Amino acid sequence: MRRNYKKADLPVYQIRKYLEPGPVVLISTLWEGKTNIMTQSWHTIMEFTPSLIGCMITAANHSFEMIRESRECVINIPTVDLINEIIGIGNITGDQTDKFKKFALTPEKGQFVKTPLIKECYANYECKLIDDSLLEKYNFFIFEVLRAQAATYPRYPKTVHYRGAGRFMVSGKELSLPQKFKKKNLL
Amino acid sequence: MRRNYKKADLPVYQIRKYLEPGPVVLISTLWEGKTNIMTQSWHTIMEFTPSLIGCMITAANHSFEMIRESRECVINIPTVDLINEIIGIGNITGDQTDKFKKFALTPEKGQFVKTPLIKECYANYECKLIDDSLLEKYNFFIFEVLRAQAATYPRYPKTVHYRGAGRFMVSGKELSLPQKFKKKNLL
Repeated sequence: MRRNYKKADLPVYQIRKYLEPGPVVLISTLWEGKTNIMTQSWHTIMEFTPSLIGCMITAANHSFEMIRESRECVINIPTVDLINEIIGIGNITGDQTDKFKKFALTPEKGQFVKTPLIKECYANYECKLIDDSLLEKYNFFIFEVLRAQAATYPRYPKTVHYRGAGRFMVSGKELSLPQKFKKKNLL
Repeated sequence: MRRNYKKADLPVYQIRKYLEPGPVVLISTLWEGKTNIMTQSWHTIMEFTPSLIGCMITAANHSFEMIRESRECVINIPTVDLINEIIGIGNITGDQTDKFKKFALTPEKGQFVKTPLIKECYANYECKLIDDSLLEKYNFFIFEVLRAQAATYPRYPKTVHYRGAGRFMVSGKELSLPQKFKKKNLL
């Protein structure tokens, strides 16, 4: 059953908390009045402040041009209750289909982007494209996160992590070991 | 207790299997006769063929210069049995310490790089630096994986995934759902 998350703002320098573990994300886009959603997991945190994320998105993907033109997107972090949507969205193209409608996902208004957020996801990061110089060579987008929201409960999301070939790892137990770190490294 | 993995070669286009889920990695380096190891988790797959990985490594890190000069490294994927080594390696600098020795890790000879692999890790990816043009602006290295090895058992590793602030997620259960994918998407 789908989760109904209640969310709060998350400081943008803390977005690693949910993205650095490497979950599959749903990237929503808006261009010329049409929305799209893609399933993606080739991403990395690149900086705390400004809050930067790098994403490789194949140029053949419908979202590639939409992001390049609109210069924005939302990185939404879904949990395992959305596994059918994650797979379904990744297996159809968005050029003919309204994926919000097809997958019964709720578009929510952002603050810094026109692109709708996906309400059913655990976290939503509103992103502006700040560097498109690597698109030609690597299809690599560099985004700045301008606003982040995340669910207030549970403390950590049950995310899915892709291995290829139809296989996913689901996030397991949490280890909290700050006492083993030097204080200056506890970012 | 530490695992003693028996390994086999993995085709380099399949390295996503263990890296795309987003684990913390140990990056080993060699320059001017000295080795080093760093704990890292800001990385992403960037391409299947050639097999590319992008990594953000802060310039303040001792490994940054070593990789820039030697133009190679090994990305080693540790499992949760090495959690103390993962944290310990991330909390001391390598300029005065032989981390292989201090953490009793076994250096193994690579095939395409001079840098030693870490025997105790589940997988080892031998990397050459193929693009350093993003170092000045983003501290971002682009590597090509020339050879990969991974443990033959267990089928999937118990990796650790960092959230910041001394907290880790440990990989949980596996979901295999290829029947829900279009065949052409089952890479």
